Amino acid sequence: MMSEWQYRTPGIPDDKFIRGQIPMTKEEVRAVTIAKLRLNKDSTVYDIGAGTGSVTVETALKAVTGTVYAIERDAEGVDLIQQNIDKFSIDNVEVISGTAPAVLKELPPVERVMIGGSGGQLKEILAVVDKKLAMGGRVVINAITLDTLDLARTELARLDYEVEICNLAVTRTKEVGNYQMLDGLNPIYIICGEKRCQDEAR
Amino acid sequence: MMSEWQYRTPGIPDDKFIRGQIPMTKEEVRAVTIAKLRLNKDSTVYDIGAGTGSVTVETALKAVTGTVYAIERDAEGVDLIQQNIDKFSIDNVEVISGTAPAVLKELPPVERVMIGGSGGQLKEILAVVDKKLAMGGRVVINAITLDTLDLARTELARLDYEVEICNLAVTRTKEVGNYQMLDGLNPIYIICGEKRCQDEAR
Amino acid sequence: MMSEWQYRTPGIPDDKFIRGQIPMTKEEVRAVTIAKLRLNKDSTVYDIGAGTGSVTVETALKAVTGTVYAIERDAEGVDLIQQNIDKFSIDNVEVISGTAPAVLKELPPVERVMIGGSGGQLKEILAVVDKKLAMGGRVVINAITLDTLDLARTELARLDYEVEICNLAVTRTKEVGNYQMLDGLNPIYIICGEKRCQDEAR
Amino acid sequence: MMSEWQYRTPGIPDDKFIRGQIPMTKEEVRAVTIAKLRLNKDSTVYDIGAGTGSVTVETALKAVTGTVYAIERDAEGVDLIQQNIDKFSIDNVEVISGTAPAVLKELPPVERVMIGGSGGQLKEILAVVDKKLAMGGRVVINAITLDTLDLARTELARLDYEVEICNLAVTRTKEVGNYQMLDGLNPIYIICGEKRCQDEAR
Repeated sequence: MMSEWQYRTPGIPDDKFIRGQIPMTKEEVRAVTIAKLRLNKDSTVYDIGAGTGSVTVETALKAVTGTVYAIERDAEGVDLIQQNIDKFSIDNVEVISGTAPAVLKELPPVERVMIGGSGGQLKEILAVVDKKLAMGGRVVINAITLDTLDLARTELARLDYEVEICNLAVTRTKEVGNYQMLDGLNPIYIICGEKRCQDEAR
Repeated sequence: MMSEWQYRTPGIPDDKFIRGQIPMTKEEVRAVTIAKLRLNKDSTVYDIGAGTGSVTVETALKAVTGTVYAIERDAEGVDLIQQNIDKFSIDNVEVISGTAPAVLKELPPVERVMIGGSGGQLKEILAVVDKKLAMGGRVVINAITLDTLDLARTELARLDYEVEICNLAVTRTKEVGNYQMLDGLNPIYIICGEKRCQDEAR
Repeated sequence: MMSEWQYRTPGIPDDKFIRGQIPMTKEEVRAVTIAKLRLNKDSTVYDIGAGTGSVTVETALKAVTGTVYAIERDAEGVDLIQQNIDKFSIDNVEVISGTAPAVLKELPPVERVMIGGSGGQLKEILAVVDKKLAMGGRVVINAITLDTLDLARTELARLDYEVEICNLAVTRTKEVGNYQMLDGLNPIYIICGEKRCQDEAR
Repeated sequence: MMSEWQYRTPGIPDDKFIRGQIPMTKEEVRAVTIAKLRLNKDSTVYDIGAGTGSVTVETALKAVTGTVYAIERDAEGVDLIQQNIDKFSIDNVEVISGTAPAVLKELPPVERVMIGGSGGQLKEILAVVDKKLAMGGRVVINAITLDTLDLARTELARLDYEVEICNLAVTRTKEVGNYQMLDGLNPIYIICGEKRCQDEAR
């Protein structure tokens, strides 16, 4: 079966995904998020708070011989993720209906972790993730609140990860009559943490 | 030889590239630019105004069985592109020292065109690109001036391309003492044009 | 009667204004817009496309012994402007129901011109404004489309005005539960033109 | 003596100020900052970390019958503030060479507090400010680091102030040849706290 996306580059247009009421990571933000994850062909990935599954799909298309564990507590989300996986003919995703960090404990060790939503449990999630994450592994957190930004910074620093932060403000133009109107998306912070190898530890 | 970049995702960190005095497309902007190009494994690509070659390298890593023509008029740029190609062990790039649109005439038909710099010849470049570009092919223009933005919009509309525009404002944080200082990069407009297939023409 | 606003600084909170379905210039953008107008106590001002009258009110509070001509073609707008003028106990505004540039012809010479909306007649409006505007006078245009931005730049350059452009991207935080969520307003271009005095003309 | 600034609106152009090596609050940010301070004619104001005195000058021009206490620990800053006060013919500023919160203790009660720099003592400064600040009084903090943003939020919440936050990203255009190049200033967070009146206390 032909996949919905035949290109080798991430940043799939938003309208290719089946969407519900759940907010979706927009294509430009997704492109940068996927970049910051630095995926290998065989990466094992947790996608925590996977939402509609748009990052799940993009991740799975890169880590083709790896496995993506898409964790989502909302039933509508779980359903959307499954639909989008089917639409893009993806077979290396395991969809997990449940809440992190509880469900993480059963999962195998991991090399890349995406956190798109944490249900107020970011601190606890990062504590468990840290135990599962390989040396040199990466965690990427998308924060749409100042509180998540703060907590992500504080916890990654406490874990002595190498931290890098950027804020992305995307403005699109929208055709209104014959005019191109500026249409600002909500800015988002992308916080990346890399687990230091033993000999890099400070 | 091992390449400098072993990951399957674009958005290579800026410090992986050999850089000179020439401005370089920053990694977050590069990630979105590559996304907007929608590359195939075998795409033929022109990279016009290739600068340091950072987009050239990322493009070539995706279009592995295709060819990237990296065009640059500045001698320092041509040298940097060559150095970066070597650093990333890339063999599907042809570096062309010269000025567009003049040098384009000798080149084969193309499926994707990246314009990072146009030397004041954007209108003329787009006219020639249009003749070379396949139906459904895409042009992506990175504009750091309002003038390039205007001209790109005007000319792509005149050619009846399907146009999509976004502005990307990336703010990084920079460690100053124990503080994370906000460090805004210059915003950039990314203008995408897709050549309509015959039956889509308006 | 006590005015709704007792402070000496512009940038009145949005919720102090009576609002309808018409888009209103947000307080941070208004504060910068008023700054760029550089008002005197006795300035004569046209406020073209006055909308809800929020800029009208702020302008009138500064140019207390001058007159602000608030021009609006939409009946709902005219009504809102009048309501807001009353709410802020302002008596130096003349509300004009009609379309620029037609209605400008009857008006006295002017020192400051604010253009918040132009109904597709920006070129014609600027031509008439130029005839009315004093040497050293200023025009401030708020553009929410790329088309207005382009046209404003082109026309002010053609009139040989001294031009200054800035883009303002305001992100507020919005309390959602116990979280401060990032809430991006649409970016806006503020284009300022100053009419050169005779001996400054290039 | 004629003042350097004859207009009634804040947002004085940056180049009107005498500047040294010390960073200065840019005019658009200053316009919004002054707006958020909501000054009365007779306000008593502390300007803590006054830098070059650009906010001091704008504040003093509004609170004409009040007093602005400009506090700066850097000798170059103190000198610049004095020079700018002279340039703008201002006589209602008291320049204090010293460090907050130590120097605050001698000062009279206050209605408005601007914090442009805190030398790592923001928590201690806010504790003292809270004792000095009138009911309904306002504190405005300009933060260029995530750390100041966090601390400001935390402390103002702890003091049970009504808090409002916005981020301002200003992009100017810069003429390069015949092109208008986008030139992004560093984004800044403006955090406002209002001390609740007794009967509003939660």
